[in-house]
Amino acid sequence: MHFTSDTSSEGVREQLFTVGDVPGVLWTPEDATTPRPLIFLGHGGGRHKKAPDIAALAHRLVTEQRYAVTSADVPGHGDRPTDETYDRIATENQARIEAGEDPAPLIAAFQALVADQTVPEWQGVLDVVQDLPHVGRGPVGYWGVSLGCGLGVPFIAAEPRVAAAVVGLGGASASAETARKITVPIAFLLQWDDERVPRPEALALYGAFASPEKTLHANPGKHGEVPDFELDDTLHFFARHLS
Amino acid sequence: MHFTSDTSSEGVREQLFTVGDVPGVLWTPEDATTPRPLIFLGHGGGRHKKAPDIAALAHRLVTEQRYAVTSADVPGHGDRPTDETYDRIATENQARIEAGEDPAPLIAAFQALVADQTVPEWQGVLDVVQDLPHVGRGPVGYWGVSLGCGLGVPFIAAEPRVAAAVVGLGGASASAETARKITVPIAFLLQWDDERVPRPEALALYGAFASPEKTLHANPGKHGEVPDFELDDTLHFFARHLS
Repeated sequence: MHFTSDTSSEGVREQLFTVGDVPGVLWTPEDATTPRPLIFLGHGGGRHKKAPDIAALAHRLVTEQRYAVTSADVPGHGDRPTDETYDRIATENQARIEAGEDPAPLIAAFQALVADQTVPEWQGVLDVVQDLPHVGRGPVGYWGVSLGCGLGVPFIAAEPRVAAAVVGLGGASASAETARKITVPIAFLLQWDDERVPRPEALALYGAFASPEKTLHANPGKHGEVPDFELDDTLHFFARHLS
Repeated sequence: MHFTSDTSSEGVREQLFTVGDVPGVLWTPEDATTPRPLIFLGHGGGRHKKAPDIAALAHRLVTEQRYAVTSADVPGHGDRPTDETYDRIATENQARIEAGEDPAPLIAAFQALVADQTVPEWQGVLDVVQDLPHVGRGPVGYWGVSLGCGLGVPFIAAEPRVAAAVVGLGGASASAETARKITVPIAFLLQWDDERVPRPEALALYGAFASPEKTLHANPGKHGEVPDFELDDTLHFFARHLS
């Protein structure tokens, strides 16, 4: 683990770091010195570890719940170089979708390929971050929608430290098979008018989780229009399961 | 309005009353003297105005949010005499359902008949309760699931004082037509394994509300198994819209 920056603002300490090739960020309360719950945030497609939605959620988790929050750039995103293989597949998929092909299996195959890389990367981030005294080995939560759901479901299934997760804006064809292995509490976000994930696909993914406690929150609007009040619900959900 | 009882326990004042033939209950903070938000609770089928789920929710709304809460017995329920017409129809419906008939249209027709009576009754309860100085003319919310949804949807549609509502465990064939007239914020509870309301029926009712803000909360389990944490969400929902 190599730190590249350590700053504080409005009570939130932000440490930028790399673990191998993976650029990450850690947010903690400025005065934190002891172990606490840790939330891993998975960013969306074309975004990065400090995208506005990620930073805003991190700020609230740190200031309102005094959690530690970490995120990492997905390959080909943020501070990482373009990945030629992923880039080529993404370009090919885009062309096939524009030619009328069903996007669901293409996205599913692509996300599975990327997850083979990100699951061990994110586990490596948890390892080093939990070695820090102001993070420690407390309970771990995961939050990620859209690409953060596609990569998050395999991460949650593979990583026994994850004790509760908020996911969503994803579909069954990409993630249902893996979701059937997950038993931790899940909050699942669905956009009723999602132009990218057909409603039956999203409902079927919610249905696939084996978790005895899983709650679906649906709201009107398109893929990118999750209402702000779901942030409050996310904080309540993590407080219920990790605090 | 005729009061029949006035008691206090654990900071909650409970007044029992009648308005015409309708027995009602009003819960307020023991020390309340000024106007405050008012929640009308619609009870479930075969239950009554002080059923355990109603009393528990009322207690939390009063003690945690200092709201006023009121409920009334539906005809044929609680302290009201058996209604021979309703009773006869319910018995006939039960026999038809046992003979294999689709229950949805039977329930829909029955609830529409009862709502023709309960909508003006509940409006009358609001009138007299809001005349009391410790309730006053603050914002009004509605909460009701199952029968409380079937009777609640016509009430919300008819009553402009209702500014936000929690409903659920109901289906489109009973309530969608009226739900299309409703535009206030709605939280809708759905049980994923509801043995009484088919899932597509419930999803279609959520979809029918014209409300720009409407949020669907689905959870695993049968009709009567709404998880306790939804009570927290109900309190947050009313706080967001009425406080």
